Amino acid sequence: MAQYMDVHHGMKGITADQLMAAHKADLAVEKGEGVHFERAWADPESGTVYCLSEAPSPEAVQRVHELAGHRADEVHPVPYSI
Amino acid sequence: MAQYMDVHHGMKGITADQLMAAHKADLAVEKGEGVHFERAWADPESGTVYCLSEAPSPEAVQRVHELAGHRADEVHPVPYSI
Repeated sequence: MAQYMDVHHGMKGITADQLMAAHKADLAVEKGEGVHFERAWADPESGTVYCLSEAPSPEAVQRVHELAGHRADEVHPVPYSI
Repeated sequence: MAQYMDVHHGMKGITADQLMAAHKADLAVEKGEGVHFERAWADPESGTVYCLSEAPSPEAVQRVHELAGHRADEVHPVPYSI
């Protein structure tokens, strides 16, 4: 398992409710891929969403987001964190 | 106070020790700006670093990073988080 930060662009105007709904959609399907989405942060002005997860691979992170209907634009392994 | 996610590009090959040293440099000067850097994540492959902070403004976040010697490329307010 490793930690990943993925990024979604083009989310201008996203609301707190929409962020929560998207996160719940991830949680509903993540177990099948061995992924856990831990945190998410949204900037509605620039339309950027960051998601922090624990996962076996970047492909598993993307598969969960795809199953939930919101493919990530970037998936970064973040082996170092504080 | 609000939450911010800032992003540094061009950090290819960053090590765990360098990430910790950069974070400590932020912590050493953050009080003067009323900022607190909470977390940081590094992807040495793409050279991307993400920093999560509580701060009174995006300018305050940037001033701390400048004082610490590592200006951020992006500073995003993240009013919504999970």
